[in-house]
Amino acid sequence: MKEVLTFGETMVLFNPQASGPLRFVEGFSKSIGGADSNVAIALARLGHDAGWFSKVGDDEFGRYIKNTVRGEGVDVSRLKVDKGASTGILFKERVNNANPNVYYYRAGSAASRLAIEDLDVEYIKDTKIIHITGITPALSESCRETVFKVLEIAKENGITISFDPNIRLKLWTLEEARPVLLKIAEMSDIIFPGIEEGEMLLGLDNEKEISEKFLEMGCKTVVVKLGEKGCYVATKAEKEYIQGFQVATEDTVGAGDGFAAGFLSGVLKNLSVRECGIQGNAVGAMATLVKGDMEGYPYYDQLMAFMGNKKGIDR
Amino acid sequence: MKEVLTFGETMVLFNPQASGPLRFVEGFSKSIGGADSNVAIALARLGHDAGWFSKVGDDEFGRYIKNTVRGEGVDVSRLKVDKGASTGILFKERVNNANPNVYYYRAGSAASRLAIEDLDVEYIKDTKIIHITGITPALSESCRETVFKVLEIAKENGITISFDPNIRLKLWTLEEARPVLLKIAEMSDIIFPGIEEGEMLLGLDNEKEISEKFLEMGCKTVVVKLGEKGCYVATKAEKEYIQGFQVATEDTVGAGDGFAAGFLSGVLKNLSVRECGIQGNAVGAMATLVKGDMEGYPYYDQLMAFMGNKKGIDR
Amino acid sequence: MKEVLTFGETMVLFNPQASGPLRFVEGFSKSIGGADSNVAIALARLGHDAGWFSKVGDDEFGRYIKNTVRGEGVDVSRLKVDKGASTGILFKERVNNANPNVYYYRAGSAASRLAIEDLDVEYIKDTKIIHITGITPALSESCRETVFKVLEIAKENGITISFDPNIRLKLWTLEEARPVLLKIAEMSDIIFPGIEEGEMLLGLDNEKEISEKFLEMGCKTVVVKLGEKGCYVATKAEKEYIQGFQVATEDTVGAGDGFAAGFLSGVLKNLSVRECGIQGNAVGAMATLVKGDMEGYPYYDQLMAFMGNKKGIDR
Amino acid sequence: MKEVLTFGETMVLFNPQASGPLRFVEGFSKSIGGADSNVAIALARLGHDAGWFSKVGDDEFGRYIKNTVRGEGVDVSRLKVDKGASTGILFKERVNNANPNVYYYRAGSAASRLAIEDLDVEYIKDTKIIHITGITPALSESCRETVFKVLEIAKENGITISFDPNIRLKLWTLEEARPVLLKIAEMSDIIFPGIEEGEMLLGLDNEKEISEKFLEMGCKTVVVKLGEKGCYVATKAEKEYIQGFQVATEDTVGAGDGFAAGFLSGVLKNLSVRECGIQGNAVGAMATLVKGDMEGYPYYDQLMAFMGNKKGIDR
Amino acid sequence: MKEVLTFGETMVLFNPQASGPLRFVEGFSKSIGGADSNVAIALARLGHDAGWFSKVGDDEFGRYIKNTVRGEGVDVSRLKVDKGASTGILFKERVNNANPNVYYYRAGSAASRLAIEDLDVEYIKDTKIIHITGITPALSESCRETVFKVLEIAKENGITISFDPNIRLKLWTLEEARPVLLKIAEMSDIIFPGIEEGEMLLGLDNEKEISEKFLEMGCKTVVVKLGEKGCYVATKAEKEYIQGFQVATEDTVGAGDGFAAGFLSGVLKNLSVRECGIQGNAVGAMATLVKGDMEGYPYYDQLMAFMGNKKGIDR
Amino acid sequence: MKEVLTFGETMVLFNPQASGPLRFVEGFSKSIGGADSNVAIALARLGHDAGWFSKVGDDEFGRYIKNTVRGEGVDVSRLKVDKGASTGILFKERVNNANPNVYYYRAGSAASRLAIEDLDVEYIKDTKIIHITGITPALSESCRETVFKVLEIAKENGITISFDPNIRLKLWTLEEARPVLLKIAEMSDIIFPGIEEGEMLLGLDNEKEISEKFLEMGCKTVVVKLGEKGCYVATKAEKEYIQGFQVATEDTVGAGDGFAAGFLSGVLKNLSVRECGIQGNAVGAMATLVKGDMEGYPYYDQLMAFMGNKKGIDR
Repeated sequence: MKEVLTFGETMVLFNPQASGPLRFVEGFSKSIGGADSNVAIALARLGHDAGWFSKVGDDEFGRYIKNTVRGEGVDVSRLKVDKGASTGILFKERVNNANPNVYYYRAGSAASRLAIEDLDVEYIKDTKIIHITGITPALSESCRETVFKVLEIAKENGITISFDPNIRLKLWTLEEARPVLLKIAEMSDIIFPGIEEGEMLLGLDNEKEISEKFLEMGCKTVVVKLGEKGCYVATKAEKEYIQGFQVATEDTVGAGDGFAAGFLSGVLKNLSVRECGIQGNAVGAMATLVKGDMEGYPYYDQLMAFMGNKKGIDR
Repeated sequence: MKEVLTFGETMVLFNPQASGPLRFVEGFSKSIGGADSNVAIALARLGHDAGWFSKVGDDEFGRYIKNTVRGEGVDVSRLKVDKGASTGILFKERVNNANPNVYYYRAGSAASRLAIEDLDVEYIKDTKIIHITGITPALSESCRETVFKVLEIAKENGITISFDPNIRLKLWTLEEARPVLLKIAEMSDIIFPGIEEGEMLLGLDNEKEISEKFLEMGCKTVVVKLGEKGCYVATKAEKEYIQGFQVATEDTVGAGDGFAAGFLSGVLKNLSVRECGIQGNAVGAMATLVKGDMEGYPYYDQLMAFMGNKKGIDR
Repeated sequence: MKEVLTFGETMVLFNPQASGPLRFVEGFSKSIGGADSNVAIALARLGHDAGWFSKVGDDEFGRYIKNTVRGEGVDVSRLKVDKGASTGILFKERVNNANPNVYYYRAGSAASRLAIEDLDVEYIKDTKIIHITGITPALSESCRETVFKVLEIAKENGITISFDPNIRLKLWTLEEARPVLLKIAEMSDIIFPGIEEGEMLLGLDNEKEISEKFLEMGCKTVVVKLGEKGCYVATKAEKEYIQGFQVATEDTVGAGDGFAAGFLSGVLKNLSVRECGIQGNAVGAMATLVKGDMEGYPYYDQLMAFMGNKKGIDR
Repeated sequence: MKEVLTFGETMVLFNPQASGPLRFVEGFSKSIGGADSNVAIALARLGHDAGWFSKVGDDEFGRYIKNTVRGEGVDVSRLKVDKGASTGILFKERVNNANPNVYYYRAGSAASRLAIEDLDVEYIKDTKIIHITGITPALSESCRETVFKVLEIAKENGITISFDPNIRLKLWTLEEARPVLLKIAEMSDIIFPGIEEGEMLLGLDNEKEISEKFLEMGCKTVVVKLGEKGCYVATKAEKEYIQGFQVATEDTVGAGDGFAAGFLSGVLKNLSVRECGIQGNAVGAMATLVKGDMEGYPYYDQLMAFMGNKKGIDR
Repeated sequence: MKEVLTFGETMVLFNPQASGPLRFVEGFSKSIGGADSNVAIALARLGHDAGWFSKVGDDEFGRYIKNTVRGEGVDVSRLKVDKGASTGILFKERVNNANPNVYYYRAGSAASRLAIEDLDVEYIKDTKIIHITGITPALSESCRETVFKVLEIAKENGITISFDPNIRLKLWTLEEARPVLLKIAEMSDIIFPGIEEGEMLLGLDNEKEISEKFLEMGCKTVVVKLGEKGCYVATKAEKEYIQGFQVATEDTVGAGDGFAAGFLSGVLKNLSVRECGIQGNAVGAMATLVKGDMEGYPYYDQLMAFMGNKKGIDR
Repeated sequence: MKEVLTFGETMVLFNPQASGPLRFVEGFSKSIGGADSNVAIALARLGHDAGWFSKVGDDEFGRYIKNTVRGEGVDVSRLKVDKGASTGILFKERVNNANPNVYYYRAGSAASRLAIEDLDVEYIKDTKIIHITGITPALSESCRETVFKVLEIAKENGITISFDPNIRLKLWTLEEARPVLLKIAEMSDIIFPGIEEGEMLLGLDNEKEISEKFLEMGCKTVVVKLGEKGCYVATKAEKEYIQGFQVATEDTVGAGDGFAAGFLSGVLKNLSVRECGIQGNAVGAMATLVKGDMEGYPYYDQLMAFMGNKKGIDR
């Protein structure tokens, strides 16, 4: 039985070999980017049995994504190939260490054509936790339907649902996003909102109100990500701040996915929510030490060493 | 008054920094690719007053294309920016020096949204030769309409129409392409088919029959491109083979566009068709000496030096 | 009618691909460098009709400069090619983020041979503002004469003269420079000194005395550049400090030229001196956000967005 | 049940970024090299269920090898990590397109410490074909013992044994190698010698005698590799030449491993020996089209397309 | 007569072309690394007559080391070539600007086979100062014997012995290292311990006690390196702190060797210990300004300029 | 006593990182180029005691040249540094594997200011062979005088004079060159003309007449280089053709210098002229196997191995 399953678009990511406006950049280097596969990779590195699926084009970029994710030890046996569409790609642009600009070539991509008929229901059922990001339902109507179909299967089979809202206003408007994401939230057991996302979805701007609201909506565990400060975890029974690790940040992209993976790893090991939060903070912090979306996620030994060296809130 | 005007999609072209399947290629270098701008650039290098227009996205890749074409001395004052679409891009893949594979990301590109309302009629009128490629009508319905609108303006204003069929079966089927391209051919004064194109459009497989047929259809000058062998030029009055230049080929992409530009340069200088053909052969040959689509097109002095060093059919 | 005209040497600039003493640097990347073309490029990006001329060698480096400046939309129709001299080049060396060392290969360069007979008087007359840098008269005797000839034409034709002293002690001694630069200053309508330049030229070390002195000498507008702090603008009528924008600086080369361009753009739009100063500060600040001499100059929309996001002295 | 199992050292391979003596080469690019993993990868690309194991150091190079082989779809679940030794590496040096020189750093490597106690006997039993290369027994005494233990398990369990002698005189002398390799040959069902290897092992210099001798020794199928010419296949029942494919060779390294994989793929599909040989020739030829050891191995569809386009001996 | 002689292993050092875990690094650049050759190079740059010897493999990496050290003006006439072993190499890994990880491939290297019979006794005798690092005796038994043989020759011939403990716990345990290093210390005239080394060797954790102890053991000058703070120098007669130079550090590797070289340069010029210490501080600081182990060591003029610009303790 | 002494300009050479017109080349890599230092380096690699001197600027490029030549084992103790001039540089441009174009930045370079007062007469006297190239007298009046002063010293001291005409029409006209080079020829013991040089200097176009003429002028040994064909050697006593080695040429630059070095190495070992010629042919051929001016010159062992593998005229 898989411990975790994720699904959704992973793209080939072209990183500029120099900073500055892209028209002045001569060369680009290839890697992969995708929140869903990030979470699966981070969990596989920590020793968990993780699966990820999506749809890629019948092209070199699709094969590259497949091999890269598989190379990390994630099960990709349900990845589909779509002969009628290309694999999505994106370009980053970096100016002066600010957040990178992103140029997408993903409209009509193979992944955006993921549909209910692509699902292997038995495979999905055989899972402890299904982690959903708010990116997948934004890709297309069929992707949205697919997400809800997976949620339905999960619900029917008592699978834990984990949800990271990941609001991407480049893909849909807030008006479109809000009802969909709230509906997913209602079905989730664990939710990982940020403050800004709480504001967009609920109109609430602090961790306490945000978590209260999500608990009311039926979530069992609400983990409000507070960036460098750490996180605030709330269940019916417990509510507490868990202080983050202080590190010299190199690149924050992928830190949120790492956080979720660190937390879920704790859940899979039946750690306390507090310990889950510390672990989430640690993986998130380690992700920022290294350039790249997923390169910085630690192996289990590395995570333990880091948590021994650095102090969380009360260790 | 402009001497030549071209229009149609120019894309940012990503060249692999190593040969082999793209999934194993780490880096890519940026340049531009587009048959229409190639012809304009080649003519500008030869000292002609050339204009090119298209539509690009409001993004760095669009600005890069604009600046590159403008940098070559082509008038880009009518290039449009489309805030609702991206600039098209493509990737090349080279295996063992065979013709490169191409991966397009151009569906729905800004250029494919070029439409009649984007035309500056007065600007178009003020031109001696309008050169059309068969790529533009393949991009979209609105592009097709735009091509015919331009042809109409040209016809009404006595502008010479030059046409290179450039059949791209990745963009449309032969069934879709044939009637459109034949209709353009009928309106053209000068046409630059290859043998293979003659076969696809007319079902004829040799230069003599192909040129005869196009002359019948109303073309005044038919220039059948014969690759390394040179070309066969036919008008009502004259018909002759013009032998090509023997060179050590490095990269043939862009050679056909260079050929057309070399020929049209001769037309603009009122050279004999024979001299036009020799000049076309020379620019085409020089284009193959250098890696890249348009990097090898010569300046006028370089062309003269090359034609002095190498012998055409009877010099 | 051109809005702005600049002239003077632009060189090919070789940037080390690694920091440290150049003898340990394996690779170098090519770009262009020149204060005069910088100002023209920055103004063209902001939407102005700008021209620049100089003299380059009949070589690939000269063609590269021509195409790059032309690609930015600057009119280069009066750029001369000198068959008897090479295009000047320079190498930068970076050690530990300090100001780069510079190694010039420009002695006897084509640009240093610019002379009065290279001038197209009618072209010069057809200009609103002529911007002069103190680099051009330092290059050679003939360059010096050319500068004064242009000043004479400007004076006779009521063209506004803008002047940035740009004292380069690698090119001439202060003893040589001072009388020449002061003579140019006397003829200028707008002058852009820094504090250090004021000290070298006038022996005065604060913005108030410096601007007073230049006003006395006949300048109508004195803009003392104060680096990150902004600028001090003085006319007969008004005198005020205009606070700079706080940004995370990446590379300060080219900031002064951007400042002048931003200010002159305001002049061309009849903005108040205060608004001109804010705009100069903004372009100067944006230039420092990006590595490279001219890569960071903004398009007009980008400038407006930046000025909206960041606060100038009283906005 | 796995279809094929291979085991033996895979190293990180550093390719020079330029040709010439290594002391003048500034940069090196990383990939992997290993005959055993090559065969497993080539078979996995063709759609077979392949496993490979070895021992790597507890270091980044070991993790890189694991992820790369796993990324290709090969089962690496039995790969061991040795905390007391490093992962072996090698450097290539290319001068003028001749065969590259190789510099090894593999003495005492983790893989050379592979020993009988590292074997998972149940895992080994669950295999149709075990492919052995003559490199593994050359690495160390414990590797030699491991090879014979695996052979013993295979024999006891009716697993087909495939053997490629791969004589490496940089690792042992011919005197050391000959008795060991002949002993393995005697236990093998399928053997893939080259002419030169036949000469070294048997003192015979033509394919007919070589195959006769190996058949006498008990091999059921002898496949003598003849390079570009193809191969000669001999069983008790059949003997025939199978002509190779003519291609423009880019890099021959890895072609022999590809040949073996192509042949074994046919065996797994119960193709005739003739068809197996054609398939071996095809994969070997395709491997040479691409720079790199294993980058050129085809996917099944690509193999079929290639065999359709190119003609083997009688197609 | 040589002024200084050093000996010991120098390796080819492969620097990652990107930061992050090495499995994600595509390219590596070659340079050299070795504490003993660093000291010799730094002294040669300062104008001294320095020699260095070691043993390298009969391979390109050995030739590269020889040419690089010789290129710096160090006498390498006694460098031996060992046909039976490889030149040692190492890889660096950089994560987030922390101290780099190091992966060695040096076990059994040519240098580790340096032995007493490789010594040219007359050459050694003809030296003013012999500088020993604690790395050489850690490499092998024969290296350890070689060190003591050299010490014996030095003692017999009145050559000044300089010693930098350089404890490398990757090469031997502290238990192995301590008695050896203390024995060398007892024979040394000048010793350069750090605080941490004092603690490991003597169990003392402050510069005063450490230097007192070494003076007792017979050292004439003890120079305790205090990193950015400078150093503490103690002789029988004088004891004082010498403040370091404040610089923006880029890379600290090689700074300690530079310090020793700067100090010894002063000794060779008969400067006071105070002046020697200032000079050591300066060379050490300059080394940190530049990426790379030895690239930052100054020429004499550069050192003088630096010491003029920056202030030492009382200048 | 030095075996060979050369002197003359060595420049930093910037190689384009891609082929094609330089305006399209993004990056350049640094190496050194100079016929005189090439000969010295080639001889040093073969084990001879060689010296080279020149003048470089007080800059990083000068230091780079010094260290590179010294690194090859050539004595550079008489290399002068000129604080008033820059080190010369050049750029290569490669189009389609033809001979590269060259762009010089050497006018007024430090080396061109080499003058009689830079000579160390005692150092020059202490030499067996002085090798002169026809490049040095082309650089400047003072260089010309220096060459003749050295010739005078050589003559007075019975030093063998070797001369390679190396006519460079980019540096002087044939009219200027001819009398100077003939005057040097008259003073030379060994001369290495090519056929084309014979034609330019003597108006003779075959090896027999050319050598006859030089023998008449007083040369003792005339070695006419015949490229791939080998050479023709003539003395009063012997005259013969010596066939060249057939190799796959990669880059011919530097082959002539290697030829001269190979021949002179034979002279220094008192080989027969025939053996000298074979050795010259071999070093010249090996130089062409490797990209770069001097990278391909062999070590003595490599030369012997090559001459054993390949056959010269009668071996």
